[in-house]
Amino acid sequence: MPAKRRTQKTGLPPGTPVYIGKERTKKVKITVMNYDEKNFLEKELNKVEECLPFKNKSGVTWINIDGIHNVGIVEKIGKFFDLHPLTVEDIVNTNQRPKIEDFNDYDFIVLKMLYMNSKKNLVDEQVSLILGKNFVISFQEKEGDVFDYVRERIRSSKGKIKSLGADYLAYALMDAIVDNYFAILERFEDSIEGLQERLVKTPTRNTLQVIHHLKREVGFLKKAVWPLREVIASLEKQETPLITKPTLFYLRDVYDHTIQVIDTTEAFKDSISGMLDIYLSSVSNKTNQIMKVLTIIATIFIPLTFITGIYGMNFKYMPELTWRYGYPIVLIIMAIVVILMIVYFKKKKWF
Amino acid sequence: MPAKRRTQKTGLPPGTPVYIGKERTKKVKITVMNYDEKNFLEKELNKVEECLPFKNKSGVTWINIDGIHNVGIVEKIGKFFDLHPLTVEDIVNTNQRPKIEDFNDYDFIVLKMLYMNSKKNLVDEQVSLILGKNFVISFQEKEGDVFDYVRERIRSSKGKIKSLGADYLAYALMDAIVDNYFAILERFEDSIEGLQERLVKTPTRNTLQVIHHLKREVGFLKKAVWPLREVIASLEKQETPLITKPTLFYLRDVYDHTIQVIDTTEAFKDSISGMLDIYLSSVSNKTNQIMKVLTIIATIFIPLTFITGIYGMNFKYMPELTWRYGYPIVLIIMAIVVILMIVYFKKKKWF
Amino acid sequence: MPAKRRTQKTGLPPGTPVYIGKERTKKVKITVMNYDEKNFLEKELNKVEECLPFKNKSGVTWINIDGIHNVGIVEKIGKFFDLHPLTVEDIVNTNQRPKIEDFNDYDFIVLKMLYMNSKKNLVDEQVSLILGKNFVISFQEKEGDVFDYVRERIRSSKGKIKSLGADYLAYALMDAIVDNYFAILERFEDSIEGLQERLVKTPTRNTLQVIHHLKREVGFLKKAVWPLREVIASLEKQETPLITKPTLFYLRDVYDHTIQVIDTTEAFKDSISGMLDIYLSSVSNKTNQIMKVLTIIATIFIPLTFITGIYGMNFKYMPELTWRYGYPIVLIIMAIVVILMIVYFKKKKWF
Amino acid sequence: MPAKRRTQKTGLPPGTPVYIGKERTKKVKITVMNYDEKNFLEKELNKVEECLPFKNKSGVTWINIDGIHNVGIVEKIGKFFDLHPLTVEDIVNTNQRPKIEDFNDYDFIVLKMLYMNSKKNLVDEQVSLILGKNFVISFQEKEGDVFDYVRERIRSSKGKIKSLGADYLAYALMDAIVDNYFAILERFEDSIEGLQERLVKTPTRNTLQVIHHLKREVGFLKKAVWPLREVIASLEKQETPLITKPTLFYLRDVYDHTIQVIDTTEAFKDSISGMLDIYLSSVSNKTNQIMKVLTIIATIFIPLTFITGIYGMNFKYMPELTWRYGYPIVLIIMAIVVILMIVYFKKKKWF
Amino acid sequence: MPAKRRTQKTGLPPGTPVYIGKERTKKVKITVMNYDEKNFLEKELNKVEECLPFKNKSGVTWINIDGIHNVGIVEKIGKFFDLHPLTVEDIVNTNQRPKIEDFNDYDFIVLKMLYMNSKKNLVDEQVSLILGKNFVISFQEKEGDVFDYVRERIRSSKGKIKSLGADYLAYALMDAIVDNYFAILERFEDSIEGLQERLVKTPTRNTLQVIHHLKREVGFLKKAVWPLREVIASLEKQETPLITKPTLFYLRDVYDHTIQVIDTTEAFKDSISGMLDIYLSSVSNKTNQIMKVLTIIATIFIPLTFITGIYGMNFKYMPELTWRYGYPIVLIIMAIVVILMIVYFKKKKWF
Repeated sequence: MPAKRRTQKTGLPPGTPVYIGKERTKKVKITVMNYDEKNFLEKELNKVEECLPFKNKSGVTWINIDGIHNVGIVEKIGKFFDLHPLTVEDIVNTNQRPKIEDFNDYDFIVLKMLYMNSKKNLVDEQVSLILGKNFVISFQEKEGDVFDYVRERIRSSKGKIKSLGADYLAYALMDAIVDNYFAILERFEDSIEGLQERLVKTPTRNTLQVIHHLKREVGFLKKAVWPLREVIASLEKQETPLITKPTLFYLRDVYDHTIQVIDTTEAFKDSISGMLDIYLSSVSNKTNQIMKVLTIIATIFIPLTFITGIYGMNFKYMPELTWRYGYPIVLIIMAIVVILMIVYFKKKKWF
Repeated sequence: MPAKRRTQKTGLPPGTPVYIGKERTKKVKITVMNYDEKNFLEKELNKVEECLPFKNKSGVTWINIDGIHNVGIVEKIGKFFDLHPLTVEDIVNTNQRPKIEDFNDYDFIVLKMLYMNSKKNLVDEQVSLILGKNFVISFQEKEGDVFDYVRERIRSSKGKIKSLGADYLAYALMDAIVDNYFAILERFEDSIEGLQERLVKTPTRNTLQVIHHLKREVGFLKKAVWPLREVIASLEKQETPLITKPTLFYLRDVYDHTIQVIDTTEAFKDSISGMLDIYLSSVSNKTNQIMKVLTIIATIFIPLTFITGIYGMNFKYMPELTWRYGYPIVLIIMAIVVILMIVYFKKKKWF
Repeated sequence: MPAKRRTQKTGLPPGTPVYIGKERTKKVKITVMNYDEKNFLEKELNKVEECLPFKNKSGVTWINIDGIHNVGIVEKIGKFFDLHPLTVEDIVNTNQRPKIEDFNDYDFIVLKMLYMNSKKNLVDEQVSLILGKNFVISFQEKEGDVFDYVRERIRSSKGKIKSLGADYLAYALMDAIVDNYFAILERFEDSIEGLQERLVKTPTRNTLQVIHHLKREVGFLKKAVWPLREVIASLEKQETPLITKPTLFYLRDVYDHTIQVIDTTEAFKDSISGMLDIYLSSVSNKTNQIMKVLTIIATIFIPLTFITGIYGMNFKYMPELTWRYGYPIVLIIMAIVVILMIVYFKKKKWF
Repeated sequence: MPAKRRTQKTGLPPGTPVYIGKERTKKVKITVMNYDEKNFLEKELNKVEECLPFKNKSGVTWINIDGIHNVGIVEKIGKFFDLHPLTVEDIVNTNQRPKIEDFNDYDFIVLKMLYMNSKKNLVDEQVSLILGKNFVISFQEKEGDVFDYVRERIRSSKGKIKSLGADYLAYALMDAIVDNYFAILERFEDSIEGLQERLVKTPTRNTLQVIHHLKREVGFLKKAVWPLREVIASLEKQETPLITKPTLFYLRDVYDHTIQVIDTTEAFKDSISGMLDIYLSSVSNKTNQIMKVLTIIATIFIPLTFITGIYGMNFKYMPELTWRYGYPIVLIIMAIVVILMIVYFKKKKWF
Repeated sequence: MPAKRRTQKTGLPPGTPVYIGKERTKKVKITVMNYDEKNFLEKELNKVEECLPFKNKSGVTWINIDGIHNVGIVEKIGKFFDLHPLTVEDIVNTNQRPKIEDFNDYDFIVLKMLYMNSKKNLVDEQVSLILGKNFVISFQEKEGDVFDYVRERIRSSKGKIKSLGADYLAYALMDAIVDNYFAILERFEDSIEGLQERLVKTPTRNTLQVIHHLKREVGFLKKAVWPLREVIASLEKQETPLITKPTLFYLRDVYDHTIQVIDTTEAFKDSISGMLDIYLSSVSNKTNQIMKVLTIIATIFIPLTFITGIYGMNFKYMPELTWRYGYPIVLIIMAIVVILMIVYFKKKKWF
């Protein structure tokens, strides 16, 4: 888990926004959309001050900020839209767990977007949403494409998005993130299936490490998804004018999807622990296999060697040694011993 | 688990119905029944538009649709009966978990029908029910026979079904599905009992795979059944004019059956984990068995071989070698050693 | 678990009573008691119709039916006392879990009586109670003696039973059943203690099977007892004129006993899983023991045999062979090796 | 667990007091204290009837009964103070779990006192408290000293006890019992620490038995303490004139102590299961150790013995045998083999 | 866990403050701060009586006491500020779990500060807060620096602290403690990561002890943090004039941090149990490795030794012994046996 160091914040007064994460030098990108059923406006802002006039503009306004390492910009937006200092602090402190906080004038929603990095590890990115009366402000750690579908729907007036308010827009953004989880789940599914096959065919010592890596990743996934359930549930139950009735049905839908994601995560956990069982049992089976080979060899040859030992003794008076057929008789006796042993092992099903 | 790919939906606006599942080319079959205590009408529709006049017809109307791959038909029915777009979407997206959603004018209920496919794997099929004031619409993925008993009861006026309303019909359909679970449970019971016997008699390496397969199947079953409990409980508690009082007793009955199914599923889980224990313990018992054989053989013959080694040495001055009875004496000593060993093993209960 | 086949019911309308269980040809026995503080009447009925006059008779009436395989009789009683069809169905379908259902005019209570069958397996029998305003009807699968103490108390006017109403009678019957559980618990206690002793002294491979059998039995017990807790709790909380205040104290008492039974069951579960641990550990201890013997023997004799091997070689020029005391010197060297080995093993605490 | 046989009660009407426990012949000891802020009276009663005048005496009266095997005495007290028959039954039936029962006129509280018996096993004794408006009656199985501190405080007017009512006295008695648990906990702590040390230094086969014994004892402790939490919580929440407001703070305090006891018990459970892990792992480590010794010995000497075997063969034409330095060369070769082996084992870190 | 002995308190009346912990001879240090938006006063008191005038002084007063072994001083403060005797008792009895108690006039909050001692073990220190209408009193076991940041903020008027009331000050102190937990968590993270690496590279027998030590430490951490969640939640929900609305947002923030700490603790627990799995599996892998070496050696040489045994026999009539090329033929046969063995092991992937 890429747990970011938090101790650098120790001692600062609460409400002090400190960016936690890998410092980035990219420019912060601010885009604004304003629309109602008839009108539509989209533009990229050069200065953060330009978003001020949208505060009380009619229609729904969506301000999207890609990049939160520039704490100054986030603070300014906070000031323009009367955000509580704690909200500003939480936006840039990307260690939050998914949550919703009701600040009367607006809802502050924190979500986690998940994707695979170049090393095929699961990493998360914090997405913060501010849902106001007629606006939504979204903050992402870096430029992403998960909201592109929503943008496209607004531009092309597909679906109901333009006829409904800011709450529906917030829902649409949350839905886009949850939809994205399904892609992650399918990736996991493939990994697990691949591992399951390998486990049966060619378990190596490395397999255990892979299983545990997968287990940790599923744990990481779970940590991002579990609180989401509560977040959406409390959005539904919240008695606020911010959420209108038609949107409630849609929230219930995204809640359902969350439950599906959680269920699948739980199923993954079960699969993985099943794989652990199979792995451990296959290791102990292998020990068994090795033991069997040793035992068969030893059990067959030790008695034979004993017989040769007897006739290797140097006693003066050993009548068998002088028999004409002593040697072949001994060889035949040995052959009989071997056959009896093999019959015994067959009966024990050791072959 | 036949988890169907969901990512093909990514980016579409919510409420867009997309059929997820194996494309089927069969014709969709729509049948209608309309009845009250005196009248009864049953027919198969050629065009979906023919169901429109049944919307406000007196008596109870049951429309059954077999096949939901033709999304257009489902959408039309949705339009005729004022279904919410999300309902239509969920009907054709067969990835839902069992749930109930209250859309004021109607209840939308999703259930999972379970059956064994030709490979003896458990598969599920989604059944969606729309319970309106005087109608029930049921959607199945393909033609099935689980509702035949209900049809028969309506046709022959058996039981109370004709004297009660649409809510009782919905109950009857749910009851038919839950009843079907008991057949699945009995199949599982047979599998588990068979496995238990094999486990004691002839455990093979394959047994572990079978146990884990069974475990996964029970997990799959559980996933279909657990949410059902909540579904029916919330149907009972829902304060809606759609559910009349006499039906409540029946809902409580089907709730009871669900609990029974869940209890049995839990018992299966316990049995399976018990089998795992026994399997693992039998493997380690086998290692023990093999160790014993090795140890007995080695412990008996190694000292004997040592004795032969002594008298195989070529020292010039070894008085025993020239004794008249040296050889038989040594043989007797060896016999004594063997007897002592066997007594020791007997005492240790190794035979 | 003697899970009775339920599929024979599939497709029948709800409320159709079908007897599930081993068909019995014994005659059904119906006995009636009617009493108040002054009067007392007891008789065995020949025909089920004879119980009709007791419906509205003053005082408390207790009708006990031994044998429910004659579905017709149960249905008639259902009709006489206005029982819901679902109640009648549940009485004869002995697959119910313990439950209470409030049908306004009466409470329907299902309990499980437990006893050991001739093979020393735990089996259950379903007891159904109908608690009406002034009557109690009890249904048993076969003639039993668990209610004899209650009968005796009524006959002899012992305790408060005659001065209180039908609710107290229902309580007394439930109490008799719960009291009976304690006998079962004591039997289990003896089994567990016996097993524990055997486990330490002479664990055999069979022991594991016995432990798992016991575990399943305790699971079976738990399944019968757990729901009982809820049943009695909801009886207490139910706001119904059927239960009078003085009886509430007694219900609390039987609730207490149920908790005691559950606690003991949980303690059994812990004991059994502890025994599993000890068994598994004793198996691996045994492997250890065997390994030690093998290692001691091999470690002592393999080096010795090597020494004999050296002096068994046929080199022409081996000065030791011609020494006068070569043989005794080698024997002494071997003895020293043995002593060193034994000292080493002593230090390692292998003896 | 010293589970006392309960079946001797089967069939008796509820409310019949039957003493369960080891019959004792000691005399029952009844002591009475009556006090208010100014007055104080203490005496030992010869006859149970002497406590009657205290029923309505002003001030707080505390009647303590040591010994409940004389059921008649308990019944008389029950009659004098209008106790419900079920209360009397529960006082002498020492199988109760800790509980509180509200009988309107009085609260009936059952607690478990714990102490170590002479065999160092944990045993419990039932203490029952009756909290009336102005009196407390306490029943103990035998004379104990746990309440002596409370007595002393009353006699010497230490603390607030004399200025507060009967509810405070009941609290003080409960507090004395909970305080006593801490002594038990410290004993356990010592046992666990001792065991932990022994586990690391000299684990024997017996250790497992000791761990499981400790586990059972902790389970026993837990069973006595867990319900206590609920008991005190419901005392706090109970809306009754029996409990006055100032006492509530004190009840919260004893509740806190109970939680502390429970927490410590849970910590013990974790420690013990950790010890089990370490024990099992140390056993398998030992097997490893033994295996290593065997493998090292066998791996070194088996090849050497093979070499001696070669030159022990009796072929006529074996040139090496006649070499002048054949014997020392073979010895040197053997030495090299041994050195190579040792290097290999060192590399594998087997030494 | 440094569980302090509590039994020394047995028998004392409740409300008797007894210092539990290591007796310290350091002087108790009392500092006072009084501030409002305009004024600021800070001084160290020589005598406890000097804090009396601050009781009703306008503005917010913060009294901090470092050292609670001087019970007399704590008692005096208790008297000055009308604290309940139980509060005073709990302040000096450092065995409390984190809790909040509402005493109407003030809230009593107990927290645990965690730090690593010189032996790198986690130890806790009890911090008690009294939140009154216009004052906060904090008690620490010894002088610490965790509150220095808060002091600094007051002195320098940074943040909102001076414009808000005593409740915000209490929040700030709690926040300082929770912030401190993150430092502990990061230490643990480093330990766990280090251990994980060592586990894969060089697991030793000691590793298990370290894992278990870490597990206990995490358990200790959890015990300090879990109750905190409840403490803050009930502070939020408490309907009291002591907490003003603006502070509620901040309490929610510290609640959030607590959840983060708990989540991380849970993740640690999972990591540790995963490490246990890997450790155990690596031990059994090692056994496997050892077994393989033994088996390979034994399997190769035992048959060879047998062959040498045959030609070491002393039969008079063994034709092979007199063959001209008998010896080299036998050597070639042995070489073939070795090659076959190696091929077999290669196929089995033992190398």
